[in-house]
Amino acid sequence: MERLGIAVIGAGYWGPNLVRNLRASDDWHLRAVCDLDLDRAARVVGPPGDVRVTASLDEVLADPAIDAVAIATPARTHHGLALAALAAGKHVLVEKPLADSAEHGLAMIDSAEAGGLVLMADHTYCYTPAVQKIRELIAEGALGDLLFIDSVRINLGLIQPDVDVFWDLAPHDLSIMDFILPGGLAAEAVAAQGSDPLGAGRSCVGYLSMPLARGAMAHVHVNWLSPTKIRRMVIGGTRRTLVWDDLNPQQRVSVFDRGVDLASTSEDPADRTASTISYRLGDTWSPALPEHEALASMVAEFAASIRGGRTARTDGRAALRVLRVLEAATRSLEDAGSLTRVERDEVPRELEGVR
Amino acid sequence: MERLGIAVIGAGYWGPNLVRNLRASDDWHLRAVCDLDLDRAARVVGPPGDVRVTASLDEVLADPAIDAVAIATPARTHHGLALAALAAGKHVLVEKPLADSAEHGLAMIDSAEAGGLVLMADHTYCYTPAVQKIRELIAEGALGDLLFIDSVRINLGLIQPDVDVFWDLAPHDLSIMDFILPGGLAAEAVAAQGSDPLGAGRSCVGYLSMPLARGAMAHVHVNWLSPTKIRRMVIGGTRRTLVWDDLNPQQRVSVFDRGVDLASTSEDPADRTASTISYRLGDTWSPALPEHEALASMVAEFAASIRGGRTARTDGRAALRVLRVLEAATRSLEDAGSLTRVERDEVPRELEGVR
Amino acid sequence: MERLGIAVIGAGYWGPNLVRNLRASDDWHLRAVCDLDLDRAARVVGPPGDVRVTASLDEVLADPAIDAVAIATPARTHHGLALAALAAGKHVLVEKPLADSAEHGLAMIDSAEAGGLVLMADHTYCYTPAVQKIRELIAEGALGDLLFIDSVRINLGLIQPDVDVFWDLAPHDLSIMDFILPGGLAAEAVAAQGSDPLGAGRSCVGYLSMPLARGAMAHVHVNWLSPTKIRRMVIGGTRRTLVWDDLNPQQRVSVFDRGVDLASTSEDPADRTASTISYRLGDTWSPALPEHEALASMVAEFAASIRGGRTARTDGRAALRVLRVLEAATRSLEDAGSLTRVERDEVPRELEGVR
Amino acid sequence: MERLGIAVIGAGYWGPNLVRNLRASDDWHLRAVCDLDLDRAARVVGPPGDVRVTASLDEVLADPAIDAVAIATPARTHHGLALAALAAGKHVLVEKPLADSAEHGLAMIDSAEAGGLVLMADHTYCYTPAVQKIRELIAEGALGDLLFIDSVRINLGLIQPDVDVFWDLAPHDLSIMDFILPGGLAAEAVAAQGSDPLGAGRSCVGYLSMPLARGAMAHVHVNWLSPTKIRRMVIGGTRRTLVWDDLNPQQRVSVFDRGVDLASTSEDPADRTASTISYRLGDTWSPALPEHEALASMVAEFAASIRGGRTARTDGRAALRVLRVLEAATRSLEDAGSLTRVERDEVPRELEGVR
Repeated sequence: MERLGIAVIGAGYWGPNLVRNLRASDDWHLRAVCDLDLDRAARVVGPPGDVRVTASLDEVLADPAIDAVAIATPARTHHGLALAALAAGKHVLVEKPLADSAEHGLAMIDSAEAGGLVLMADHTYCYTPAVQKIRELIAEGALGDLLFIDSVRINLGLIQPDVDVFWDLAPHDLSIMDFILPGGLAAEAVAAQGSDPLGAGRSCVGYLSMPLARGAMAHVHVNWLSPTKIRRMVIGGTRRTLVWDDLNPQQRVSVFDRGVDLASTSEDPADRTASTISYRLGDTWSPALPEHEALASMVAEFAASIRGGRTARTDGRAALRVLRVLEAATRSLEDAGSLTRVERDEVPRELEGVR
Repeated sequence: MERLGIAVIGAGYWGPNLVRNLRASDDWHLRAVCDLDLDRAARVVGPPGDVRVTASLDEVLADPAIDAVAIATPARTHHGLALAALAAGKHVLVEKPLADSAEHGLAMIDSAEAGGLVLMADHTYCYTPAVQKIRELIAEGALGDLLFIDSVRINLGLIQPDVDVFWDLAPHDLSIMDFILPGGLAAEAVAAQGSDPLGAGRSCVGYLSMPLARGAMAHVHVNWLSPTKIRRMVIGGTRRTLVWDDLNPQQRVSVFDRGVDLASTSEDPADRTASTISYRLGDTWSPALPEHEALASMVAEFAASIRGGRTARTDGRAALRVLRVLEAATRSLEDAGSLTRVERDEVPRELEGVR
Repeated sequence: MERLGIAVIGAGYWGPNLVRNLRASDDWHLRAVCDLDLDRAARVVGPPGDVRVTASLDEVLADPAIDAVAIATPARTHHGLALAALAAGKHVLVEKPLADSAEHGLAMIDSAEAGGLVLMADHTYCYTPAVQKIRELIAEGALGDLLFIDSVRINLGLIQPDVDVFWDLAPHDLSIMDFILPGGLAAEAVAAQGSDPLGAGRSCVGYLSMPLARGAMAHVHVNWLSPTKIRRMVIGGTRRTLVWDDLNPQQRVSVFDRGVDLASTSEDPADRTASTISYRLGDTWSPALPEHEALASMVAEFAASIRGGRTARTDGRAALRVLRVLEAATRSLEDAGSLTRVERDEVPRELEGVR
Repeated sequence: MERLGIAVIGAGYWGPNLVRNLRASDDWHLRAVCDLDLDRAARVVGPPGDVRVTASLDEVLADPAIDAVAIATPARTHHGLALAALAAGKHVLVEKPLADSAEHGLAMIDSAEAGGLVLMADHTYCYTPAVQKIRELIAEGALGDLLFIDSVRINLGLIQPDVDVFWDLAPHDLSIMDFILPGGLAAEAVAAQGSDPLGAGRSCVGYLSMPLARGAMAHVHVNWLSPTKIRRMVIGGTRRTLVWDDLNPQQRVSVFDRGVDLASTSEDPADRTASTISYRLGDTWSPALPEHEALASMVAEFAASIRGGRTARTDGRAALRVLRVLEAATRSLEDAGSLTRVERDEVPRELEGVR
C-alpha cells in the first residue's frame, strides 16, 4: 500500500510529536515541515534527509506529493490555514481545539464536505487505550444508564497569553465525553464558573456544569494553579461506575460493581422513593489495557478515513460540538455563570447516521 | 475542678460517639441519655450505672445537676429541642447542621444570647488535628493570599429521606471553610448545580461555586453515588498551596511550595500580564499532626467556653453562616443554578471582634 | 443457646479488645477480668456491673460458671497460666505467640489434648475478611501452584524489652502463611538475617527466608525502625498473583491475571527453557470484602470449636508450627544467618487429616 | 569547545537510548553505530546522514575521529570489546554490569589505568535527580548514621537466557548504594537467597543481605515474577529516614523526621537500653527535584572526565565493587545462602583519595 504524503504545519510544542509519529507510521510519508521559524523546523526534522524544511505554505500546498496537512499552530490560525489547505485539495488534521470559534469551525467543515475531503481533529486522548476501552464498555452497556460524569484536570500549568483555562484544557474533557457517550456530547446547556485570582486577565480556575438527558450531569474542573496534578474522570452508571485515573499507570481504569440499585418496577421516576433504593457492594475490576501510543493510533485513523472515503472518528463535527460548549461557557461566564443554551448544528441529511 | 453535668438527646447514629467522648472526658459528667426509643438509649449507655436512661425531655431539663445538653437528633427537631433547653437555662451543643433553616438558627442564637448561655455547633472536622493545623498555617500567612479552595467529598452514601446531598454533606466543607478562613466564610453569593439521576426526589450529586474576595473562588463537590471515596481539599494561595487528603493517614496535610509568582510591582491588577508571571517549583512539606480524637477536643471546647463565659469556637453564628450558604444554594438550585446572594447577619456591636 | 462463661486474664494492651468483643458476642458471657493491677482491670471493665474484677487467678479458675479463659499477658507467662487453666478444666485462648518456646507450646498442646479441651491461638489476622478470602482463593486454585510469598510488615514500632523484632512481628506473617497455605506452613528450613544498628540488644530489623516445596520461597521483612508503614503480602502463583495491601482500605486484595506462563509440555523442569516461557498481561480483579471485625469472628470460632468438640482453626498445633520457625530463626541468627532446619512435630495419628 | 567523537557498539535494547542522548549532547559528536545486525543499526540511526552504520569493530577502532566508544552489548562480550577499544586508545563507557566477572572487570580497569584512559560504567540511576539528591543529603549528614537500607525492585520481567535475577537487576541497587554511601559500598559479606519456582534454570526471585559497619544492614529484593511493580528504597538513619519511591513522580523522595532517638550519653553500645530509647514524630519533607534525563547527565560526566583527565563518578572501580558483591552472592547461593565474604580490591596508592 502506497504511503500518503503529508506535511506538518507548525514546529512548536505539538508539531514534533506529530513528526515523530508520522515518521514511525507505515501509512504516511512525511514530506515537509513548515514553520515561519526555519531554525525551529530544522531542529524538529533533524539531520538533512528527504524531508523539506520550509517557511512557505504555498510551496507545501502546491506540492502534488502532499495529500494532507497536519496543522499544529495556535488556535487562532487554524481557520485560515485549514481553508487554504482544503482549497488546495488537501485533507486536513487540526490540533485541538479545531478553531477559535464555532463559526470558523463550521466554515472549515463546510469546505471539507464541499470538497469531499477529510477534516479531522487531533483529539489525542480519544486514541488512548484507556478511552478506547471506556467507549467500548459504555457501548456494550457495562455501566448501564449514565448518572454522572465528573472530570478533574488540574496541574500547575502555563498561563496562556490568549486563551483562558476553559479553552486550553476543557477541550480534552469535552472531546473525551463526546467520544465515549453513545450519542456524542449532547449537552443542551452549560453553566461556567471561572476565577482569575491572580489578575491574569482570564480565568485560571474553572468549573463547567452540563445537565444531560434524564437528570444526569457532567461536570469539569480545570485549573492551572494546582501544584498537585490530578487527571481523573468518574463515570457513574446505574449498573457500575468507572474511574479513570490517568496518572496511575498500574491501574488506569477501574470498574466498580458498586452503587445504588432501584427496586422500583415503575417507569415513572416519581415512584422511585427512598424505600425502593438499595446498595450494592461488589467487586472491582481493572481491565488490562494494550500499550500503544495514542498519537500512532490517531495518525492511523487519519489515513484510514482518507483511504476509506469515510468520516474520521474525531471528525470536524465532533470538534464543532466541543466548540459549541466552549462558546456557551464563555457566554455563561459573562453572565455570572447562568445556565446558557448550547447551540446545536443540524447535520445534513446525507450524513445522518454516519456516526 | 468540678465536672459539668450533661445529657445527650438522641441515641441514633451520632449519639453514641458523644456518649463515649463525654464519658472519657474529665470536664463532663454524663448524667442522662434521652431518646424516645428507650431500648436504643439503654444499649448506648450499656450496663446499668449512674447514667439515667429516659424518654422524657422534661425530666432532663428539670434536673439541676444537668448544666448542658448535647442534641444529636434529626435536623428538623434541633430548633424545638434547643429552644426548650435554652429556656430551661441549659447550655446547648447541636449536631450539624445547626438547624433546618437560618431563621430557626437565628432564633436559637438570639435565645442563647438573651440567656447568656453557650450555643455551640458540633462541627467535628474543625477539631481534627489536620484542620487545626490548616487554620494555623493560614493565620500565620504560610499560604499567602487565598486564590482558590476546592473541596471534594464523595462516597457511596445513604440517600437521606428528608435532605438533599447539599444539606447532608456540604455542612462539613462549609463549616471547615468558615473555621480556617481568617474572617470566616464570607461568600456573598453561591451558584449550585445539582442532579437527581435516580429520580430520588432530591439532588444526589451537587456542586457549589462561591466567588470570594479579590477574585478567589471556593468550590464544593458532594456526591452520594460515587463508589470511590474521596475527601480532599486543595487550598491555593499566592505563597503556597495546601492539600488535605483526609483518607491518607500517612500524609494528611501537604504544603507545596510551588505555584505561580507575580513579578509585577504595580498594585493595579490590570498591569499583571503574562510576561510578569513566573513559576516556582519548590519543596513539599508535610507537618506532623498530633493524634487525638476530634470529638474529645470538641467536648473540651464546649466545657471551656461555658467555664470561660465566652463564645465557643464553632458557635451558633459560625453555624448560621453555614446555613445562610445552604439556603442560598437551595434558592440557586430552584433558579437553574444562577448566582444567588447569600444573606448576611449583622453581628451585634457588643460581639464584634470576639471572633 | 446458652452463653459460655469466660474470663480475660491480662488487662494491658490487648485485653481491652478481647473484653469489647466478648461483650458484643452472643456466644460469650464475660464473667471476670483478672489482672494484678486491679485499677487497670477496673478501667477496662468500666462502670460496675456483673463482671468481676480480680487479681486472683485461683478465684477465676475455681469458678464453675467460667468455661474458658482468654490469656492476654506477656508471652513468657502464657505457659504457666495456660497449664493452670487447662488443669482446672478450662478451654484456653492465647494471644500470639502461643508461648515463648516450642517446648512450652508443646506442653500446652499435650495438656489440652489430654484433657479434651480446646487450645486456640488468637492469630487475629487469620480472621480478617482479607485473609479469609485469600485462603479461599488459594484453596480453590485461583492462584495455581505457589511460586513465592513476600511479606513486608514495617513501621515505627515499640522496641520490646524482652523479645526481638522476629518474635514480636513475624508471628503475624507466619500464622497468616500457615492459615492460607493448604498444608499449613511447612518450611523445612529458615535463614534469618537481623540487625541491631541502635545497639538495643536485639534485632530491630529482620529478614526471614524459607525455601518451600517445589522451588518456591517465602520471605518476611519485619522492621521496627521504618517511619513509613507498609503491610503488604505478595503471593505469586503459576496462574495468578495476589497482592494484599492491608493499608489500602479501598482495595485491600488485588488479584492479577498476569504472570509468566510455561509452554513446556514436559514434566521435567529441566526442559523448561527460556524459549518455552511466555508472558500474560490480563486483568486485575479486586474482590469485595465483607466488613466485620476480625476479633468478633475469632471469638465466634473459639465458641464454635468448644461447642463442636473440634479443633479450632488456629489451634495449638498451628501456633506450634509458628514457634518452630521462630526458634529455627533464632538459631540461624546465632549462626550468621545459615539455613537452619525447622523441627517438625509428629501429629498423633488420631488427629491426622483433621486440618 | 570541540565535540568528542564517539561510536555506539550494540544497537539492541539500550543502544538507542545512548544514541538519542549522545546526539542531543553538546559534548559529543556521534560518528558511528556498530552492530552485527546492520538493519537494526540502520533503524537506530534513522535517515541517512553523517553517522556511519557498520558491522566492523575494527573500522570503528581505526577511526581517529572517534575518541570513545559506548558499549551496549550483552555482558559476556563487554570484556573483549572493552579491551580491544582500550588497546586502540579509546575511552570506554560500558553498560551495566561492567563485565561478567570481577576478574574480567579488573583486567579492564588495569588496561584503562595503564593507558591513561577513562573507563566508566553506565550506572544510569546514579545520574537521576533523585539519587543525586540522596547522595547530597547523606553526605551533608541529613540522615545521621546509617541504620539500614532496604531496596525493592520487583516487576514482571523478562527471564534472561544467560543471567539470573541477581545479575540482571541487583546491579542497579548495588551501584546506587555504592554511589550514595560516603565510602562506597563496603559490604564485607553477603548472604543470598534465590528461588527458581518455574524451573527456568536460574533464580527468578532473589534476596541479598549485607551486614554493614556498626550493625547496619543493607537488603535487596529483586524479582522477575511480580505483576505489581515496586521500586522503592528505604534508607534509615539515626537522624532521619529517607524513602525513595521511583514510581511516584509527584513525590519521589521523602525525608521523614521520625525515628528512634538514643538518649544514651555513653559511647558504649552496651549501655543503650530500652529505657534510654525515645521516639520522635516530626514532619515529612519532600525536596523538589530538577527535571533532567539521567542519561544526559551520564554522557556529560563521561565527557567531563575525559576532558578533565580525571576518574569518572561511576568509574571502573565502582563497578568492580558491584561485581565483587554479585560474585559473592553467587557463591552464597551455591552454599545454601551462607554469609559469604566479599573480596576487596586494593586501590593503587596513587589513586587513593580520588573518590
